[in-house]
Amino acid sequence: MKVACIDFEGVLVPEIWISLAERTGIDDLKLTTRDIPDYDELMGHRLGIMDKHGLRFKQLLEAAEGLEPLPGAADFLAWLRSEFQVAIISDTFHELARPLVAKLGCPVILCHRLEIDADDRIVGYHIRQADPKRCAVKAFQSLNYEVVATGDSYNDISMLSQAERGFFFCPSDKVTRDYPDIPVARDYDALRAMFAAALA
Amino acid sequence: MKVACIDFEGVLVPEIWISLAERTGIDDLKLTTRDIPDYDELMGHRLGIMDKHGLRFKQLLEAAEGLEPLPGAADFLAWLRSEFQVAIISDTFHELARPLVAKLGCPVILCHRLEIDADDRIVGYHIRQADPKRCAVKAFQSLNYEVVATGDSYNDISMLSQAERGFFFCPSDKVTRDYPDIPVARDYDALRAMFAAALA
Repeated sequence: MKVACIDFEGVLVPEIWISLAERTGIDDLKLTTRDIPDYDELMGHRLGIMDKHGLRFKQLLEAAEGLEPLPGAADFLAWLRSEFQVAIISDTFHELARPLVAKLGCPVILCHRLEIDADDRIVGYHIRQADPKRCAVKAFQSLNYEVVATGDSYNDISMLSQAERGFFFCPSDKVTRDYPDIPVARDYDALRAMFAAALA
Repeated sequence: MKVACIDFEGVLVPEIWISLAERTGIDDLKLTTRDIPDYDELMGHRLGIMDKHGLRFKQLLEAAEGLEPLPGAADFLAWLRSEFQVAIISDTFHELARPLVAKLGCPVILCHRLEIDADDRIVGYHIRQADPKRCAVKAFQSLNYEVVATGDSYNDISMLSQAERGFFFCPSDKVTRDYPDIPVARDYDALRAMFAAALA
């Protein structure tokens, strides 16, 4: 038995902030970790835009509630949970992930927390810890599990390199050029085959 | 967001080895960690009896497959998963837990492994690590989560004491006499109320 650590947005569900950008027409909200690898810089950018446009947590949560898992994600995850112990390791926030996690049958997700004030404004966020994805893999390794991981972007590199096996899923060309040694799956069939091979 | 670490047999599902005892009529297989706190001693006892009676892994797995979660367990677990990140921390074995875990919607379970030979005989077992339940709690604490735990017996004590909050669920009188400081829930309503209070 091994542990699968998998990224959330871009691997199982669409990017929630891009959905908010589309719903509000604010293109500046479309940037993700693919565009700004530094997460604090990215979140500062996002919260600044929300504040400027008077957006509340409610609008962000509605964007998440309006999304569905990526086509094929639920089947892939169901298979993965039958063969591995699965933990989603994400840089999203527990408050925001909730509706999509429920649609996927409540897998474990380890991520960050938002700070929301009485007026429903997002006034801050709490990163779980420094280098959170690597630490999650190390925690399962400390329990004598081997870890197989997948993610799509820069914030997954420490997880993919700390794991015994790590694969990209549908990454940008830029990230594959920067990390040419990490195997790439471009659909769920290919990703499932990689995880199945890692079981052996 | 907190992590709930919960025992498996006796909390969510019946004792699998007792089921095997009942199916085979071998009363000696009825002993559990409630009776023999030393797990290696208990497993040595169980495997010796299986060998003596020519029982194979198949019979043990059939005993597990024939069981259902305890009445109310699925509802309790569904609620728990909506409020906590949940990991079942068990001294059972991945190979054996699989059918019951599937009936509960594939929650994460961290446990041990059986070694089964080509003739389907259980020839050994691999404990994940020493003091496995305490280590599991510490792993989640290393990720900056507070842990709320529940279990029914001696092998849960290290988990219940390592967690920020720990409760007994339907323990024997003996274990509550030995550990009078650990709060006791005697049904799922009481257990849910304890976990809900721990959320605050």
